[in-house]
Amino acid sequence: MDLLKNKIISDGRALPGDVLLVDSFLNHQIDVPLMREIGREFARIYQDMGITRIVTIESSGIAPAFAAAEEMGLPLVVMKKSVSSLLTEGILQTPVFSYTKGSTYHLTLKRRFINEGDRVLFIDDFLANGEAALGAAKLIEGAGAELSGIGIVIEKAYQSGRKKLLDAGYDVVALASVAAMDEGVIEFVK
Amino acid sequence: MDLLKNKIISDGRALPGDVLLVDSFLNHQIDVPLMREIGREFARIYQDMGITRIVTIESSGIAPAFAAAEEMGLPLVVMKKSVSSLLTEGILQTPVFSYTKGSTYHLTLKRRFINEGDRVLFIDDFLANGEAALGAAKLIEGAGAELSGIGIVIEKAYQSGRKKLLDAGYDVVALASVAAMDEGVIEFVK
Repeated sequence: MDLLKNKIISDGRALPGDVLLVDSFLNHQIDVPLMREIGREFARIYQDMGITRIVTIESSGIAPAFAAAEEMGLPLVVMKKSVSSLLTEGILQTPVFSYTKGSTYHLTLKRRFINEGDRVLFIDDFLANGEAALGAAKLIEGAGAELSGIGIVIEKAYQSGRKKLLDAGYDVVALASVAAMDEGVIEFVK
Repeated sequence: MDLLKNKIISDGRALPGDVLLVDSFLNHQIDVPLMREIGREFARIYQDMGITRIVTIESSGIAPAFAAAEEMGLPLVVMKKSVSSLLTEGILQTPVFSYTKGSTYHLTLKRRFINEGDRVLFIDDFLANGEAALGAAKLIEGAGAELSGIGIVIEKAYQSGRKKLLDAGYDVVALASVAAMDEGVIEFVK
């Protein structure tokens, strides 16, 4: 998706420690018109796959997933990273290690928000090592649904996430696949 | 906003412990068309106030704030509840006690995402004791901007939040104001 790649080039920053900083348009400040175009692109890609529900993880996945759900006219479910006092009944959980934060959180889903037989499109802002997507897959399947597609906004293609997900039999689409990064240099997969 | 009140009556649940459970349409599962209408309502209310930026707090504020930002054609900024390894430079922080979670988080804003002179509309999903909104106000003003309006989706009007915010000189609008709650009963402010 050229609009996204151009935005990554113009506004993203490759920092030391393999950090791709895109907080000026993707997760801290949000470029709303870009999210709308991302939603349209996901809708275009997945429109004929019989998707019945979109699932994401709080909080950076919400904006692109919201736009995609609206474009596709589908319900949206946001998996939580922690359990509050309001979320104790009928839940599914799995631990996910976040390399960014260096800690483990408990990915949480209230089971009744995914139906048996749902064909789920999972949307997230980033794919790197794939831990979050694998955790989401476990909960989606634990609810009796099928994970029909994994739609990623930005993928670090040189990390292990895509291979793990493909090996597990999932379909993965990234709107921008970063092939290599170094300070001041961002290259995309051709 | 009658559409919202009707949804709270039909799908919300008043639980023991002063809990208003609206996770089937507001924060865990998200009713996307309802969020769009909420965005339109905020746009209608604030359209003539010279707002230049919309600010919310992750993660339940994102969907209604996204819809409002899109309706108003304004940039959106999502304040974080924690600092990651990606968010260390040029930040403003303030502690906020969450009564729901029974713990304190550090509300965090990268200063450059709010400009001096911005007229900010702060949007959040809930107003109860007002701690989150007061924390947001502190960061917005710390960045040299003006907090021109506080737009809330659901307010517990019998708690102290609105009074604290009005006493501090802020404008508060809630699309649904709950006057009283008991098991199985939800009443709105007339």
